[in-house]
Amino acid sequence: MGKLNHFDNAGEAIMVDVGQKNETARMAVAKGRIRMQSETLKLVMSGSVKKGDVLGVARVAGIMATKQTSSLIPLCHPISLEHASVSFEIHEDTSEIEAICTTQTTSKTGVEMEALTGVTAALLTIYDMCKASDRAMEIHDVCVHLKTGGKSGEYRRD
Amino acid sequence: MGKLNHFDNAGEAIMVDVGQKNETARMAVAKGRIRMQSETLKLVMSGSVKKGDVLGVARVAGIMATKQTSSLIPLCHPISLEHASVSFEIHEDTSEIEAICTTQTTSKTGVEMEALTGVTAALLTIYDMCKASDRAMEIHDVCVHLKTGGKSGEYRRD
Amino acid sequence: MGKLNHFDNAGEAIMVDVGQKNETARMAVAKGRIRMQSETLKLVMSGSVKKGDVLGVARVAGIMATKQTSSLIPLCHPISLEHASVSFEIHEDTSEIEAICTTQTTSKTGVEMEALTGVTAALLTIYDMCKASDRAMEIHDVCVHLKTGGKSGEYRRD
Amino acid sequence: MGKLNHFDNAGEAIMVDVGQKNETARMAVAKGRIRMQSETLKLVMSGSVKKGDVLGVARVAGIMATKQTSSLIPLCHPISLEHASVSFEIHEDTSEIEAICTTQTTSKTGVEMEALTGVTAALLTIYDMCKASDRAMEIHDVCVHLKTGGKSGEYRRD
Amino acid sequence: MGKLNHFDNAGEAIMVDVGQKNETARMAVAKGRIRMQSETLKLVMSGSVKKGDVLGVARVAGIMATKQTSSLIPLCHPISLEHASVSFEIHEDTSEIEAICTTQTTSKTGVEMEALTGVTAALLTIYDMCKASDRAMEIHDVCVHLKTGGKSGEYRRD
Amino acid sequence: MGKLNHFDNAGEAIMVDVGQKNETARMAVAKGRIRMQSETLKLVMSGSVKKGDVLGVARVAGIMATKQTSSLIPLCHPISLEHASVSFEIHEDTSEIEAICTTQTTSKTGVEMEALTGVTAALLTIYDMCKASDRAMEIHDVCVHLKTGGKSGEYRRD
Repeated sequence: MGKLNHFDNAGEAIMVDVGQKNETARMAVAKGRIRMQSETLKLVMSGSVKKGDVLGVARVAGIMATKQTSSLIPLCHPISLEHASVSFEIHEDTSEIEAICTTQTTSKTGVEMEALTGVTAALLTIYDMCKASDRAMEIHDVCVHLKTGGKSGEYRRD
Repeated sequence: MGKLNHFDNAGEAIMVDVGQKNETARMAVAKGRIRMQSETLKLVMSGSVKKGDVLGVARVAGIMATKQTSSLIPLCHPISLEHASVSFEIHEDTSEIEAICTTQTTSKTGVEMEALTGVTAALLTIYDMCKASDRAMEIHDVCVHLKTGGKSGEYRRD
Repeated sequence: MGKLNHFDNAGEAIMVDVGQKNETARMAVAKGRIRMQSETLKLVMSGSVKKGDVLGVARVAGIMATKQTSSLIPLCHPISLEHASVSFEIHEDTSEIEAICTTQTTSKTGVEMEALTGVTAALLTIYDMCKASDRAMEIHDVCVHLKTGGKSGEYRRD
Repeated sequence: MGKLNHFDNAGEAIMVDVGQKNETARMAVAKGRIRMQSETLKLVMSGSVKKGDVLGVARVAGIMATKQTSSLIPLCHPISLEHASVSFEIHEDTSEIEAICTTQTTSKTGVEMEALTGVTAALLTIYDMCKASDRAMEIHDVCVHLKTGGKSGEYRRD
Repeated sequence: MGKLNHFDNAGEAIMVDVGQKNETARMAVAKGRIRMQSETLKLVMSGSVKKGDVLGVARVAGIMATKQTSSLIPLCHPISLEHASVSFEIHEDTSEIEAICTTQTTSKTGVEMEALTGVTAALLTIYDMCKASDRAMEIHDVCVHLKTGGKSGEYRRD
Repeated sequence: MGKLNHFDNAGEAIMVDVGQKNETARMAVAKGRIRMQSETLKLVMSGSVKKGDVLGVARVAGIMATKQTSSLIPLCHPISLEHASVSFEIHEDTSEIEAICTTQTTSKTGVEMEALTGVTAALLTIYDMCKASDRAMEIHDVCVHLKTGGKSGEYRRD
């Protein structure tokens, strides 16, 4: 059986030593979705083209959250993010908004956690802004879709 | 069609005025899950009883994140949290860990966002600590299960 | 000659004791302006109606900054903000954007610093987003226009 | 007409990708002023030589704020500041205090926003500490005076 | 044998529920010391009366840290601090600087942690500013000297 | 007599310019202790093997605090931490818990302050979790035990 590398030999949680790793260009893409009533989705969509820009606020929240990742995730290394973006896709058939966060760095460690944190903060912000209309919204399908750079190389979700 | 209350009449995002609302006891319970390979779940479970306490670290991350909610969610009010807890349930049949976050306050506005933020930070921390073994983990089913107090009264997810 | 109340009798900086003050409804409005080349202003204006919403991002930055006020201003009390908004007025004649931040609380101390912090963060964000086009932008006229509540009562700038 | 580079082709706000830029030594100097009643200025000046060191507190606030820049300005990159200082000049003729903030880094992106954030935090702190005596103080003339390093080279305000 | 109240019946860490407690006026005084070479103490003392105000910077650091307490201490409740001060006493006989932090609130829970955090941040700041001269400085005697208010009443260290 | 290097020639506090220093591998180890009643120590020890894991929570608090060091210590440079760990030793003879924090970076400046901040946050967290049983706990012996890398070379406390 494997071993979780965020613990030392005594089983104590550590921020793993990455000092010997190489600084390489690294990128990650994470995605996630929030499902809502079709009425709520219409409200968001009408807003984002004219007034009440839910997705604009959620985008800023997501980008700002990528910069707080190492403050939120206990064993995550602080890194110098070189790029972050959050975009959205509307899925009317399933009444969902999908958030896609892309992060990049040149660093000794990867930026998956930053991308995941950006996605979840964006989705939580949508929840916050729409919750008076729809308390049953649900966040799901949050995962890493692409990761490049570093010793472990590329990961691509099928 | 309804209206999103996080925008003023000009359609500009605002932190809604809650000054006229009553301070009442309020509670929220949010839940969410992370699905992983059964091997990864075994690693987490073995650790949490002996060494490498993934869930202990994730619990602290979740509780601490509840206190950062208004820094992360742009239009969320800062409130005085009076209680926060994060617990976990293991679902071996579906190879999932479920995080349950409960938050309480006596305040003019509710604590659903705090509970949701606690759940997602706990689940992201699990992702972080297990990602070297299993990049395909997926967070889903993040939603509010119970909300009490305030003018809108109780909400209970069926 | 008067005395600055943020120092004790020994001349040492303190966070003033407000424990004996009454909790009252308090409000503040602060304003400020950023002057830019007319070309830059056109870029911002074209963006805010169609693409590249500079003012939307600056609004979120301003609202979020109001919540960080007591972390930035050393002797400022942490308070429970009950409302915050940031709006903008375009002054084409002087090639300026004016930011107006309104903050409210029911608290023992006022919210002028929150309003001023919101205004400056919004203006700095405009600077950041336009600086590649126009390094000479200048922030000015940042001041409190209205303050209500508390023992000192209403202040209204002429 | 130009284009604002903090938006992608779809007009969505992004943290610009600086991954391909060179790490060079970069410096920025920003200045700004706060105008007050001459009585208030006398209070500050008497304090700073003996008791009640307003400018000492404002200096610390300014330096600490430079380190929070990327948390406050949504699309600003986190960078490793290598130097920050805040100094003050008293202008008795115009009854103003001028704050000057210098920031340095070796990085892929500049430090103007850090210098501007340091200046405004220092001036807001002066406002906070003097506001009980003088609510009409006004911050103005906040701008970048010098910027060196990076592809765009030196900028010097005339 | 007693029980630690920061854990629930399952032994899981929680932020204790204080919802049923009364809001009362509460105060705490914590103290602590840093021991240094007598040469280092002379440097600090010469500075604090003329130039290089180590204690002025440490005081601001201590006051600002009291406001970050609930972000640093995982199970600590966020509260509305109503007063914070940090003062210093020089002990030339033992070559020590003593920091004294006083905190006050009207809240459902006490402010000892805030006072202790203020003391340690002030002492660490002294360490930081003097460490180039004296790496062997040592912080000790950090403890609560007075606590008033709340159900458990007054505690006074002998 | 020497000079404190955190002040410029005018005696004003600065974040020292480290731009010309070399990036080298740097490490620091700091330690500190908290003394408590033997009954309290028994509670902690029983918890850490079965339920109520005080030291697990304190470890996470210490690691997370290392990442907040430059936000807490005014003139401390932000750096990219590459490793952080916190371990504990129980001293039953003196009824003390000792915290040991190790930090590493490849940077232009050292990581002693990070190690000291990690130690004190861990010890304060122990205080917080045990204070209902024992208000008289005392933190002491907080100091740097090892520092390597950088121009000043190795420092080892005897």
